[in-house]
Amino acid sequence: MSPQFATTDVASYMQQLGREARRTSSQLRRATSAAKNAALAAMAARLAASREALLTANESDLERARASGLDAALLDRLALSEARIEAMIEGLHQVAALPDPVGAIDDLRTRPSGIQVGQMRVPLGVIGIIYESRPNVTLEAASLCLKSGNACILRGGSEARESNAAIAECIVAGLADAGLPESAVQVVAMTDRAAVGELIAMPEYVDVIIPRGGKSLIERVARDAKVPVIKHLDGVCHVYIDASADRDKALAIAVNAKTQRYGTCNTLETLLIDAPVAGELLPELAAAYAEHRVELRGCERTRELLPGIKAAEEADWSAEYLAPVLAIRVVDGIDAAIAHIERYGSHHTDAIVSESYTLSRRFLAEVDSSSVMVNASTRFADGFEYGLGAEIGISTNKLHARGPVGLEGLTTRKYIVLGDGQIRE
Amino acid sequence: MSPQFATTDVASYMQQLGREARRTSSQLRRATSAAKNAALAAMAARLAASREALLTANESDLERARASGLDAALLDRLALSEARIEAMIEGLHQVAALPDPVGAIDDLRTRPSGIQVGQMRVPLGVIGIIYESRPNVTLEAASLCLKSGNACILRGGSEARESNAAIAECIVAGLADAGLPESAVQVVAMTDRAAVGELIAMPEYVDVIIPRGGKSLIERVARDAKVPVIKHLDGVCHVYIDASADRDKALAIAVNAKTQRYGTCNTLETLLIDAPVAGELLPELAAAYAEHRVELRGCERTRELLPGIKAAEEADWSAEYLAPVLAIRVVDGIDAAIAHIERYGSHHTDAIVSESYTLSRRFLAEVDSSSVMVNASTRFADGFEYGLGAEIGISTNKLHARGPVGLEGLTTRKYIVLGDGQIRE
Repeated sequence: MSPQFATTDVASYMQQLGREARRTSSQLRRATSAAKNAALAAMAARLAASREALLTANESDLERARASGLDAALLDRLALSEARIEAMIEGLHQVAALPDPVGAIDDLRTRPSGIQVGQMRVPLGVIGIIYESRPNVTLEAASLCLKSGNACILRGGSEARESNAAIAECIVAGLADAGLPESAVQVVAMTDRAAVGELIAMPEYVDVIIPRGGKSLIERVARDAKVPVIKHLDGVCHVYIDASADRDKALAIAVNAKTQRYGTCNTLETLLIDAPVAGELLPELAAAYAEHRVELRGCERTRELLPGIKAAEEADWSAEYLAPVLAIRVVDGIDAAIAHIERYGSHHTDAIVSESYTLSRRFLAEVDSSSVMVNASTRFADGFEYGLGAEIGISTNKLHARGPVGLEGLTTRKYIVLGDGQIRE
Repeated sequence: MSPQFATTDVASYMQQLGREARRTSSQLRRATSAAKNAALAAMAARLAASREALLTANESDLERARASGLDAALLDRLALSEARIEAMIEGLHQVAALPDPVGAIDDLRTRPSGIQVGQMRVPLGVIGIIYESRPNVTLEAASLCLKSGNACILRGGSEARESNAAIAECIVAGLADAGLPESAVQVVAMTDRAAVGELIAMPEYVDVIIPRGGKSLIERVARDAKVPVIKHLDGVCHVYIDASADRDKALAIAVNAKTQRYGTCNTLETLLIDAPVAGELLPELAAAYAEHRVELRGCERTRELLPGIKAAEEADWSAEYLAPVLAIRVVDGIDAAIAHIERYGSHHTDAIVSESYTLSRRFLAEVDSSSVMVNASTRFADGFEYGLGAEIGISTNKLHARGPVGLEGLTTRKYIVLGDGQIRE
């Protein structure tokens, strides 16, 4: 629980958690959906009965955070409230209501040898999750890992340690209520930073690491991990308005993708506009963005049409502003748009606005991003909007899970073979 | 081409290959199946016209290898022959005949917002393949990467360098014949070992590394790589003969899984036998194994039934013999069998022989291996037997591709969203 532990203590503590998680994972693999759902419901009941304790623990974290001068945005992420606790409880019921991915068998086919071959969806095993100040991630992560049949080790931010400990008590009690092993969910009690270093370097005990938080955390974890990392890096998202675009759709999408929320990874950062329609649309767009106080930064051709705005510099094309700032570039057709996205984009989410069948198909096929859209706002790139029912994060990896990651991303598939005594000749 | 290059030369050479591969990968992403198949056919024609040149280049590699004292097994892997060249040509036609995985769209569904969301199968991008002495891997790897729309960088063993260069000439000529970029397949000409170090540490240019070869190569690559590695480690495979097993199936499977080939990763290494049938079956099995000159190493209970055999030591339970040696253990029922597999196995391929519906289902669900079988020989764990049509390797990873990896394992899926102007409220 405290930084006076020597590094070897941290190492042996984390090894102990790892061994326990690995052991438990083989029990969880065989847990029924009914048992997992009962545990989720029991956790919800425990949370509901612990509102006071949760708020008290959280207040203590908040006091410490205020004393150490945390900024308002971080304090807001750290804070629990009656409403946030309600949302956590509701979240548990939602996860319980999702279909269990474990055990589904696809494509069972008979081969010429007579064996039947298929693939069965199974848990990954042990998942390590590393996150920052939001204590509700503790519950979200625990519920998704449990529902997908995985044991998990959760390492939250030290600023949320009392809140996380209080939530962990509810989780563990809920598991016990439902007869599942308490070590299905283990919250790392040591706030020593070395604990993260250990967690990401135990391939014998941990199958995958999911870091959730700022870019520097994710980069550090990805660089040092000895196990696969499902990671989310930049979201430099584009909307390309093609000459054939419907004017109303173009305006609505370009404005919504930028202004519906500024701090999210699927927010528009660079608007590309086809030269033939730039003269008509840019002034209208500029007026709409002005209402939202979005600062525009344009290429030379954009500035000819919108003389007042700032010039975009090279760095603007690859900037993830996460703020009311938008880069705009006039391009000559879809090839130039795709080339721009390929050069400067982050392969997260990119959209075309177009009425052309052929260009829409080309954009879908050729843009190499985790989400590629036609005539829809980039803000739809989200596990809930996609119907995954829940989201542990958005992956910018190409392998395993790409884009929003739901329960299925926490599982894998093994081959199963059903025979009648077949041998190989 | 030679070890006198300084390390910086190797680095800039590999960076150059990487940049070129990345550039080419966006052209390959949009290549039609027809163009890719035409290139495969053209490569086959080029190979057919180059038999002499291939055999001459190979003879020169073989001479050098003999002079440096390579053993007979390695010389055999290195050697080309008319028959092996025929097999390479035939392999190209087989890959051309496989369905193209790229562009398939799954599960396009309409969401409450009105957007349609689906997943489109797309190439990974750039694949680096590192292998040892067999020159035909050059062609196999190139054909599978091309068919799946990926650019590739191939690094073969230095002992095969002239053979690989001759094969590379046919590949590049075939690509040009079909109008595809020659840099779709790049064979690393530098035999400097540092080239491997560079290849596995260029995440900006290489999306995944597939090492094919001995365990030490794979472990080294996996340890040092800065990009995901699709790897194949141990194959410590089990057959568990349950008390309910059909006698004939049990004998056939246990003998076939061990003796059909000794050096393959899906070969049986430890036989587990349920106590009630051990007395009846073990003597019959021992007689069958004796015919194949398989050395048996047994637990105490096995040795009571087969007094002449050697005692298995602890290390035998996790040994991958790749040889006519078999460890045998008498266990008490399926729980003990699964516990043994979990403790000592390598999660590769494990089979139960049983007539029990319930125990078969339990074994399938609970054994956490890339292939889990009922009443079939472990030797079936193979891309061709599973109907993948081709196999780039067998993955012991849990994420992305698990088990035999065919064309689909060289692709990923991106989300596509089709809208009519939808924005998020």
